[in-house]
Amino acid sequence: MRRLKAAKRREQLLSVATKVFARFGYEAATTHAIAEAAGITEPILYRHFKSKQDLFIAITKQMSQQTLDHWRELIGRAGEASEKVRLIAREFPEHLRRLADAYRVIHGALATARDRRVQAVLREHYLQIEEFFVSIVREGQASGVFRKDMDPQVPAWELINLGIGYAMVVLNLSKFERFSVPDAVEFVLKGMKG
Amino acid sequence: MRRLKAAKRREQLLSVATKVFARFGYEAATTHAIAEAAGITEPILYRHFKSKQDLFIAITKQMSQQTLDHWRELIGRAGEASEKVRLIAREFPEHLRRLADAYRVIHGALATARDRRVQAVLREHYLQIEEFFVSIVREGQASGVFRKDMDPQVPAWELINLGIGYAMVVLNLSKFERFSVPDAVEFVLKGMKG
Repeated sequence: MRRLKAAKRREQLLSVATKVFARFGYEAATTHAIAEAAGITEPILYRHFKSKQDLFIAITKQMSQQTLDHWRELIGRAGEASEKVRLIAREFPEHLRRLADAYRVIHGALATARDRRVQAVLREHYLQIEEFFVSIVREGQASGVFRKDMDPQVPAWELINLGIGYAMVVLNLSKFERFSVPDAVEFVLKGMKG
Repeated sequence: MRRLKAAKRREQLLSVATKVFARFGYEAATTHAIAEAAGITEPILYRHFKSKQDLFIAITKQMSQQTLDHWRELIGRAGEASEKVRLIAREFPEHLRRLADAYRVIHGALATARDRRVQAVLREHYLQIEEFFVSIVREGQASGVFRKDMDPQVPAWELINLGIGYAMVVLNLSKFERFSVPDAVEFVLKGMKG
């Protein structure tokens, strides 16, 4: 195999590490297993990522970025705030399938990882998603689509929890789609309109 | 140490296994580590539980039972349906702290375990919780407190996802209580009243 350029190698390592973390969980995964799955030695892995933590942090940041880029693109041509929320809801199951392994990694780490740096990057991830939804809710309140007597953080977390719950249950338990994301989001929208 | 009676030993093993699973995750935990933590040999452990799966299944069933018993007791003297939901919401953070390890075990397994029997008991757990909330929603619809133009499963899962999201984020990321359960539940109740 010819030598990959650093950026390409980095990208390959993130993709392989995502699969290894998704399969074994953050705690049980080792840099040895990741290097092996990537077909390289650990010293070469360490040239790109100093530790398992660093790999996890890079995966989480990439996933946050991909999620927010995708959503911003989706809502770019949308009209008012509730249309934006609906567009994201409609695409969410497909978005989840595309990033299934990354979601597994993040939720697995959230459920088990006690590492401080891992927790810090997860907090940052959720704060970014929160900020994204809070700004849509504020926009809807300003334009009069949503009621003004609510703290935007409450419906923002309603949407985030819906995403976490759906991902946790539907990604992991096969044939267990007990609700549809668009229906759940219509329910939240109705609550926002009051 | 004098010999514990079978039932007491079983209870002790479930409690120790819950801590070991919570700490290492379902995949990484071993019956060896569980036996060691309980101060017994693996053959003695196997007299009570044939496998790691069996331990997990017993923990999940116990946790489902404890949750539903606690909630049924809480709402026993409540008036109408929305009061029932409020009582559960108010107690949920405390309930979560009490069963923190069991919640970690279940969410950790949900995020990583591919085992079919583990998945089957998790499905059963969520179906029981779903049934519990669906029956409260139906009661509220019948008595005219909640609107009738909604599938009870939608708000039921709104409440379940709220619980999953809150547990995942608040149990695991310290100082990250971005919303209160009672506020979130008031929002859902408002959506049910329409």
